[in-house]
Amino acid sequence: MHVADRLIAAVEDKTAPVCVGLDPVLGRMPDPICRAGGPLEQFRKFTFGVLDAVSPLVPAVKFQSACYERYGSGGVGVLNDAITYARELGLLIILDGKRADISQSAEHYAAAAFDAVAQDGHPDLITVNPYLGSDGVLPFIMERNDGRSVGAFVLVRTSNPSGDAIQAARLESGLTVAEHVASRVAEWGKQSIGQRGYSALGAVIGATKGIEGRSLRELMPEQMFLVPGYGAQGGSADDVRAMFKSDGTGAIVTASRSVTYPEQAPGEPWRDAVARAARSLIDSIRSVIAA
Amino acid sequence: MHVADRLIAAVEDKTAPVCVGLDPVLGRMPDPICRAGGPLEQFRKFTFGVLDAVSPLVPAVKFQSACYERYGSGGVGVLNDAITYARELGLLIILDGKRADISQSAEHYAAAAFDAVAQDGHPDLITVNPYLGSDGVLPFIMERNDGRSVGAFVLVRTSNPSGDAIQAARLESGLTVAEHVASRVAEWGKQSIGQRGYSALGAVIGATKGIEGRSLRELMPEQMFLVPGYGAQGGSADDVRAMFKSDGTGAIVTASRSVTYPEQAPGEPWRDAVARAARSLIDSIRSVIAA
Repeated sequence: MHVADRLIAAVEDKTAPVCVGLDPVLGRMPDPICRAGGPLEQFRKFTFGVLDAVSPLVPAVKFQSACYERYGSGGVGVLNDAITYARELGLLIILDGKRADISQSAEHYAAAAFDAVAQDGHPDLITVNPYLGSDGVLPFIMERNDGRSVGAFVLVRTSNPSGDAIQAARLESGLTVAEHVASRVAEWGKQSIGQRGYSALGAVIGATKGIEGRSLRELMPEQMFLVPGYGAQGGSADDVRAMFKSDGTGAIVTASRSVTYPEQAPGEPWRDAVARAARSLIDSIRSVIAA
Repeated sequence: MHVADRLIAAVEDKTAPVCVGLDPVLGRMPDPICRAGGPLEQFRKFTFGVLDAVSPLVPAVKFQSACYERYGSGGVGVLNDAITYARELGLLIILDGKRADISQSAEHYAAAAFDAVAQDGHPDLITVNPYLGSDGVLPFIMERNDGRSVGAFVLVRTSNPSGDAIQAARLESGLTVAEHVASRVAEWGKQSIGQRGYSALGAVIGATKGIEGRSLRELMPEQMFLVPGYGAQGGSADDVRAMFKSDGTGAIVTASRSVTYPEQAPGEPWRDAVARAARSLIDSIRSVIAA
């Protein structure tokens, strides 16, 4: 099945356009049970614990590659095992690697993500950077040897304040750089459209850029939006609403620490608190869409 | 010593502003001696063979991370060993990883590059992508725990044709996106200037964009330029000349396959042909600067 169709089906199956992000950081583990053992053991407990807690609730998880790469080949090993486990749990998998290179090198990164690094449990989608143009993006839209369709979310408008220095600059055409990139992404994505009308090439749009969200939504009618920044980073319900189409499709909201580092009630096990935080996020997004 | 001062000293020591890039690709190994054994063995022979051949001639080498990452933790292991060996040979080391992420995640990538992945032989500089703004760039300018200064080359103007779609778009201000990025890089780089007047933050400027080279050189007086695309990709001597200042400093030209996949004379060992190709490149660049 086309990767965009798989993503939509997964969201519909859970009635929750929500993704949980895994960004483990040593020394900031959220619970004593995660803090036992060496770094790799801590990462494994945290990652598998979150997957167990959220897999009945959400359609997708996102792994922050940098957090695992930091611990060398051992960290990459934990990441690969976690991707394999997430696949067994039926989750759709996004690798937040923010890769981009030109032509042949981009193909190597695509192979690293979709073939070699995670042979048993490759991701379904990876995040990529648009600055190098189509060369850096299109190699990530592909069919694996086993026939599985995979794709990418292009960083169009990021949630961090310093992104404005480049992305908010205004072109002669009247578009911002981000809007210009959006128009390119819309064009690049036309080569792979699923049956539900969405492309294998999606876009990352920070929830903190809500006013621009409407313009970006119009410029990219066939792109699924991956939306970070809701809640903790300051994105509001209105900001998030602009990312969805009127039929309630078109976006998936991703949250990391607000779910994986939840406030625990006295005596409440960490995994139960993670599940509770995930349910709370889902309820919040459902009410945003329904409003 | 400040990383920019180390780079300048290395160039002066060899009187050659030239870097050799290593981009091993299985099935395209340049010589029968590289093609024996399994993938990792082939990569190791190719990489160490090039390092042996060029280390007496050039100041710096550049490793294309994607090529090694493609072969998982084993490939990363070969890369780490090669970085350690290049350090022993006295070479300055550039890791072409084209990383960028926001704030905390960028710090993880910086740690992955400069601390964890290559504890014994970390690179001196890494290539980074500017699209996320200063958040994605500044974490790579740092001092390691051992006091060693490290830095980054920001992708400002890439040599691939499809980069024009974003980088050549013109802003209301009259600057292209690449020129705008250049002005940001010049500002970001001011926080770490070495004794020779160059920043720990350099710029990647493709030799195929020669006309723009002069404008970018003016916008970034304190940036060292890493210049790919000379020769094979179509960059001319005039294109390259625009990258240097009138005193002959300011740029380092990087070439990969034209050096590492040389034409071999009948009976000529591959390593000898690699050294000959490196000397030919050095002569060519010296005459460009002298002209």
